[in-house]
Amino acid sequence: MATIKDIAAKLGISVSAVSKGLNGASDISEDLRQQVLDTAIEMGYTPKRIRKESLRKLCVLIKNMDYTNPDEFAYDIVLGFRQSAIKQKWDIDAVTVTEEMQLDEKYDSFMLRNGYLGAVFLGFSLHDEWIVQLQTTTTPSVLFDNTIRNNPNVCYIGSDNFEGIQLAIDHLYSLGHRKIAFLNGEKDSMVASQRHQAYIQAMDSYNLPVSEDLTAYGDYIPATARAFVPGFLEAGATAILCGNDIIASGVITECNRLGQRVPEDISVVGFDDLPISTQTLPPLTTIRQERSELGRFAYDSLNGLIHHIRISRILLRPELIERKSTYTKKE
Amino acid sequence: MATIKDIAAKLGISVSAVSKGLNGASDISEDLRQQVLDTAIEMGYTPKRIRKESLRKLCVLIKNMDYTNPDEFAYDIVLGFRQSAIKQKWDIDAVTVTEEMQLDEKYDSFMLRNGYLGAVFLGFSLHDEWIVQLQTTTTPSVLFDNTIRNNPNVCYIGSDNFEGIQLAIDHLYSLGHRKIAFLNGEKDSMVASQRHQAYIQAMDSYNLPVSEDLTAYGDYIPATARAFVPGFLEAGATAILCGNDIIASGVITECNRLGQRVPEDISVVGFDDLPISTQTLPPLTTIRQERSELGRFAYDSLNGLIHHIRISRILLRPELIERKSTYTKKE
Repeated sequence: MATIKDIAAKLGISVSAVSKGLNGASDISEDLRQQVLDTAIEMGYTPKRIRKESLRKLCVLIKNMDYTNPDEFAYDIVLGFRQSAIKQKWDIDAVTVTEEMQLDEKYDSFMLRNGYLGAVFLGFSLHDEWIVQLQTTTTPSVLFDNTIRNNPNVCYIGSDNFEGIQLAIDHLYSLGHRKIAFLNGEKDSMVASQRHQAYIQAMDSYNLPVSEDLTAYGDYIPATARAFVPGFLEAGATAILCGNDIIASGVITECNRLGQRVPEDISVVGFDDLPISTQTLPPLTTIRQERSELGRFAYDSLNGLIHHIRISRILLRPELIERKSTYTKKE
Repeated sequence: MATIKDIAAKLGISVSAVSKGLNGASDISEDLRQQVLDTAIEMGYTPKRIRKESLRKLCVLIKNMDYTNPDEFAYDIVLGFRQSAIKQKWDIDAVTVTEEMQLDEKYDSFMLRNGYLGAVFLGFSLHDEWIVQLQTTTTPSVLFDNTIRNNPNVCYIGSDNFEGIQLAIDHLYSLGHRKIAFLNGEKDSMVASQRHQAYIQAMDSYNLPVSEDLTAYGDYIPATARAFVPGFLEAGATAILCGNDIIASGVITECNRLGQRVPEDISVVGFDDLPISTQTLPPLTTIRQERSELGRFAYDSLNGLIHHIRISRILLRPELIERKSTYTKKE
């Protein structure tokens, strides 16, 4: 294993300069600091304070999500992760990551500089710079709802989207619905594309045609409903499946605005089973993702990766939660 | 929770008759015994000795595999499973299952009668009677290399076949091979069909055509090579990827018989990294499945299912092990 001396020798600088670079001291140049970190990573250096395990730190990296609000998707995941990790005496930081941070510093270098032994990624998109760097990262990394091929330092945790969408279509079909629209979330994610495929498969399993005027990619906000619901209704939809509960809440509002009652005229199904599902009028039938459990598995698998276990993916089964937003199709 | 009294009341028989039925006593008829077990399962009865956890028993159900021989695929899986389970004070039985056993008694009834709280399935095929019954089983069950939709009592453990096959094709492509044959295992399994798809995808990732005379389903025995290798060579194959190491050992023998040297004339890649891989001449390049680790995850997930955690699947990453059976393509 490389030591500070090895790094100093390789760069032709003093041991104390290397030490300053690794510890983020302010009296060396930014360029030199980056060079020290890059070389340390390249040489497989692990800081002594980590080798001693006197400091055991993991982080949850979060983008586009508010993990401090119990109503939001990330909250229970971070909680489940933290509960498991704390039992095994890890320190956990939750870090909100911006585009700028990702452009400013390489992922491996960020992790090393902060003394983190591993990370869980939440809410990133396929094109985020740090996600691209996961192809070759040497840092144990758990990716929520996303997969990286061939790098044994990375694994994928999530819910089985195919089963989730099939449960929703099974439910709506059993209520007599045949024209079932799908208002998906944003296009730039593996989850959205899996759910799109899953919707096609599930419709196909009942020989129901999939038409373009019944499918759309929107945004994960209520207002997205306004852009697509009128078209769905015009195309004859009697049920609308949504990419998450937030979209579904917007769909209920939009149906009401257009004079359509939920569930008597239109059935609506969400995804996730966020707290909002119980607060909509009517309460939302949805596909539950067991978020605390996902958080606990995120910890188990991160711990596995740290111990060189080659986990590829862990998927949990989602569950249909029937509330009041779905009903037998009108004759 | 149903008691023996409830079962007796439902069947209109005495408590002692129910007790005899549950305990496999010889002085009641086989018909009545079966009726007692079926009713017990239907009513969600759990024997008191299990409720007390004084007896904690799990089993590994094995078909078509010899788990007592370290050279065989099942050995390390059973070992890994046992090591994890014993730490948590479970008793473990390994049970060899025949076709007859599956026709004689329902799976849930077999499990209840023997006091097993959960099982791992190894070596079964899609059409086995007990596998079909997993669609609706109420017994926690871990299925190796196979998936059951929508039943939260069942989960799937295995290796990522897509990644494994891709690793093999990447390796052969980098050595200059373009005509790569695939001698798969038996057709009646999810693994064989996934690997077939994976082969097509991997070839396609290099714009290599897949021709029928370079692909075949065989059996997991060395002799299967004799039926297919001559055709592959005639079609111009310079490399042969095999469904497992046993097949690959037969392919090496068959190539030698036909006057082709491995690896100088023909490269051969196996799958699994069984002990035989180091004993072939030349030693086999293969795709390793981490079997002990799979066994440990089988235990973790069975324990999860018993605690009502809705695990869908856990996949590990296979790994390319380069030995001496692959070589740069001849000019």
